[in-house]
Amino acid sequence: MPENIQQYQDRLHNLRKEIAKTGLDGFILPRTDEFQGEFLAPYAQRLAWLTGFTGSAGVAVILPEKATVLSDGRYTLQLRQQVDTGAYDTGNSIETPPERWLEVHADAGMHIGYDPWLHTPRQLKTMRAVLEAKGIELHALAQNPVDTIWSEKPERPQAMVRKFPDKIAGKTSLEKRELICKQMKEEGADALILTACDSICWLLNVRGGDVDYTPLVQSFLLMHADGRLDWFIDMEKVSDSVLKALGVGTVLYPYSMIDEVLPGLHGRTVWLDSTSSAAAFEDLLSTANILDKKDPCAVPKSKKTAQEQAAIRDAHIHDGRAMVRFLAWLDEEAPKGELDELSVEVQLESFRAEEMSYNGPSFPTICGFAENGAIIHYRATRQTNKKITGDGLLLIDSGGQYEWGTTDITRTIAIGAPTQEMKENYTRVLKGHIAVSMARFPQGTTGAQIDTLARAPLWEVGLDYAHGTGHGVGCYLGVHEEAANISPRGQKALEPGMLLSNEPGYYKAGHYGIRIENLVLVKEDGFCEDTNKPMLCFETVTYAPYEERLILKEMLSAQEKKWLHDYNEKLRMYVHG
Amino acid sequence: MPENIQQYQDRLHNLRKEIAKTGLDGFILPRTDEFQGEFLAPYAQRLAWLTGFTGSAGVAVILPEKATVLSDGRYTLQLRQQVDTGAYDTGNSIETPPERWLEVHADAGMHIGYDPWLHTPRQLKTMRAVLEAKGIELHALAQNPVDTIWSEKPERPQAMVRKFPDKIAGKTSLEKRELICKQMKEEGADALILTACDSICWLLNVRGGDVDYTPLVQSFLLMHADGRLDWFIDMEKVSDSVLKALGVGTVLYPYSMIDEVLPGLHGRTVWLDSTSSAAAFEDLLSTANILDKKDPCAVPKSKKTAQEQAAIRDAHIHDGRAMVRFLAWLDEEAPKGELDELSVEVQLESFRAEEMSYNGPSFPTICGFAENGAIIHYRATRQTNKKITGDGLLLIDSGGQYEWGTTDITRTIAIGAPTQEMKENYTRVLKGHIAVSMARFPQGTTGAQIDTLARAPLWEVGLDYAHGTGHGVGCYLGVHEEAANISPRGQKALEPGMLLSNEPGYYKAGHYGIRIENLVLVKEDGFCEDTNKPMLCFETVTYAPYEERLILKEMLSAQEKKWLHDYNEKLRMYVHG
Repeated sequence: MPENIQQYQDRLHNLRKEIAKTGLDGFILPRTDEFQGEFLAPYAQRLAWLTGFTGSAGVAVILPEKATVLSDGRYTLQLRQQVDTGAYDTGNSIETPPERWLEVHADAGMHIGYDPWLHTPRQLKTMRAVLEAKGIELHALAQNPVDTIWSEKPERPQAMVRKFPDKIAGKTSLEKRELICKQMKEEGADALILTACDSICWLLNVRGGDVDYTPLVQSFLLMHADGRLDWFIDMEKVSDSVLKALGVGTVLYPYSMIDEVLPGLHGRTVWLDSTSSAAAFEDLLSTANILDKKDPCAVPKSKKTAQEQAAIRDAHIHDGRAMVRFLAWLDEEAPKGELDELSVEVQLESFRAEEMSYNGPSFPTICGFAENGAIIHYRATRQTNKKITGDGLLLIDSGGQYEWGTTDITRTIAIGAPTQEMKENYTRVLKGHIAVSMARFPQGTTGAQIDTLARAPLWEVGLDYAHGTGHGVGCYLGVHEEAANISPRGQKALEPGMLLSNEPGYYKAGHYGIRIENLVLVKEDGFCEDTNKPMLCFETVTYAPYEERLILKEMLSAQEKKWLHDYNEKLRMYVHG
Repeated sequence: MPENIQQYQDRLHNLRKEIAKTGLDGFILPRTDEFQGEFLAPYAQRLAWLTGFTGSAGVAVILPEKATVLSDGRYTLQLRQQVDTGAYDTGNSIETPPERWLEVHADAGMHIGYDPWLHTPRQLKTMRAVLEAKGIELHALAQNPVDTIWSEKPERPQAMVRKFPDKIAGKTSLEKRELICKQMKEEGADALILTACDSICWLLNVRGGDVDYTPLVQSFLLMHADGRLDWFIDMEKVSDSVLKALGVGTVLYPYSMIDEVLPGLHGRTVWLDSTSSAAAFEDLLSTANILDKKDPCAVPKSKKTAQEQAAIRDAHIHDGRAMVRFLAWLDEEAPKGELDELSVEVQLESFRAEEMSYNGPSFPTICGFAENGAIIHYRATRQTNKKITGDGLLLIDSGGQYEWGTTDITRTIAIGAPTQEMKENYTRVLKGHIAVSMARFPQGTTGAQIDTLARAPLWEVGLDYAHGTGHGVGCYLGVHEEAANISPRGQKALEPGMLLSNEPGYYKAGHYGIRIENLVLVKEDGFCEDTNKPMLCFETVTYAPYEERLILKEMLSAQEKKWLHDYNEKLRMYVHG
């Protein structure tokens, strides 16, 4: 049962009154912000404020007599724990997305409101198709009714914008802008609107601190074909020296001006990525010709420059040092049986904090012991916090933001005596992890092709894992970058300079979880003899020991053993040395 | 230089006169027939008759003053050898498709004819987009001008239609038709037009002999939602007993009636697969609502029934016996240095012909010695025929049509003393071939995911091959079936019952070629422990020895050696035994 039930009931009651005032019958509130970002600043945590639900994905739907909070299968239990189930249904948003819930619970002829800053055009299209068939109409609201009733709503974040050094970026902002302008010319675009905060940070060589876990600057950017920039941002965040560094032709506007500036693009061709931009942008550009194409920063951002690569390697050596100290501490402390998941998290954070230029975690640490380790996106809370005692596996997935690189590493540790089955499955996960690490492949190979290498040793005995093998990672930016990935659905080619995770796993529900994760850089590695196309390979940049107590050496091939030996040699040289 | 230059010059001259009579400026003639089939009956070999070019893909474009024959990179040399280069340009149809050639050589305002039975709507759309931008118009012709001037054109083939036994098919035609009718109802289709001859043979449980290499019946089929069939076919080919087996509700029409029957579908919803049907069908259905969806027979045809699988295994044991005898003969004869590529082909054919129910090759045999083996789609001719003498590799890719199954097998044989490099590369190809053979994977895995396993041992040393790893194969039908494949672009899931080839290779241009090919059936193999989804694996059905003299045992893992040992055991039991 949630605490403060009355408080949430009052909020729902007030929201219903507010919805009724607008003449509508209902409202859809997804957990997102106007940047479609992964981590929300406090002012944008409307879903949590309204319903108490703090999961990383979800949506509430409010009708006069009924309401629901929906989230995916990861949060089934958490939903029931956090949400007042007297006031709200809870459900699975994959099986029952909001439009399907409305299809059942709303009446034909009803009018449902939404905040056009919190949905992409694609999401609205899907919802509309279902709802129109039932005679239910969707309406964009000029003001989010939650904001109206949320009297003590936090302010927008005000972290100052900092320069990201050119010597780490490897390209000046001006060089990057020239590259993007060239693409705009090729596509015949008069203007480009960037709404993804990490794309803007990358393009302008700046970083900020507006949300936890990622050094983002919240803002929107309008770039003209001649390179001029209109930057919509809380102007107090931009110091004179940052503004000067951006060069002439950069004009700052407060957010609110976007409503006035965008309609001025009337008749022009405007590049806008409808998969990552709020629907409000399409509404503001209703008289422009929208060129709906992928954000042009996404691919160049994913291909790290030589300077970024050097910085990333260095950040990982710092992170590896913290990990080595942490694992040594764990080896000494765990047998005493006094640790729990939350105290381990705190200790890991304290080792990282001793490293130069450490700026905080790159995502909420996953530290799950025994059956908690089998929950893929587990996050320990006071309620779930498990004592680390007896025999079991401890899975720790964590990462840091260093001023010149982002890390993401998972290690699985044996506490007490592991079973033979645990050892076998750890070794299979390790074989998949090593197969990816050693892979050599021609240019043009996709993430889906590589993914197979990670799964084959598990498939062999009928095991698998229900997540991708690898995601893109930014350079002192988002720990999840989308340009390419290693997964069964990864249809994009892997390109030199991309930074990806390599994290196969195995999860036995109710018992234990195994995951082994390093980050790897895609590199050129000679040429294909036939086609003369470059061959590519992965350079592992993460250095921390694997769990020797879980490795069955006899299951490893000579090649795998050699790889492991070489890895441990480098670990000794770079991190211990 | 081609023989009979004068003859081809006369034909081109006559064709130009005929084109001019229609008031057009030019004509496009692709190598295909109205069934978009892989193998053409003699009457449809218009391109060869006109230009002398006999390659398996190509297109001629005729203008008043210029003409060209285009084909893909496989045929660059053959084009120049077979075509009178005084009368025709030759070129690469991938780099310069016909519309690009016309863009350069035709004038704005020109009118170019095409035969709507020889192009799919998709092909025309691509051509039109390019040509319209240049002010060139395409016109469908009611009569192909080549047919007008080809005075001794062969008749359409008249092979009798035979029943394919229900006990081999595993499903009666009526059962198959009910399945397809159900799909039609789900899609709201009033009628279905099948234009792929193998789909019709599969659906009706019939086989024929209208083209070489595949036991096809050339015909078109119109199926109504209530199951009634209108079959457009040379009616003499259908005996009373075949007609009776098809059941009531089947009406035979001569081909020519299709022009009259199809327009009668006015206002109805007609399922037509635009990727495999001639554009003429769309023209005849201009007042119907075309439901453009994949041929509904393609997937069920690809998933062999238990009875078909048993028949396929048996056909492969017959084929394996012929291969074992052939390879023994080759071992004895090759050292004498008197063989050549064509005589080897003849001998292989004679061993197959001794097998019960052998009905001829399933495609033209590829038998290439030394550098000829490096030509992926090589076909030995009197001009290229190479003496098999000295040291080198002999690549033989061949297959048979047995009354209850289709085979396709490649073996690479060492003649004389192979080099260490040849052995290494053969062993790498074999490792990839074994990796596919041993693969175990969850339902939903695509051909692209499996393809990686075949290439990884070659990628490791910077080698690759420029073709897919596997194609679908029919059951006493086409040796190339498209429903699924194993290739970097294979986005379809592999499903139980599918029959596929497993044929990695390596080709060193100017030196030697290696390919190892078996056919495999997709089978269920237990369940995934997590998702409870079925796990799948491949059952190898081809049995013939590998080349022991080319295997470097020390490069094989224990698992690979065990697989090889088990394969040889089964070979001894099934084929020798």
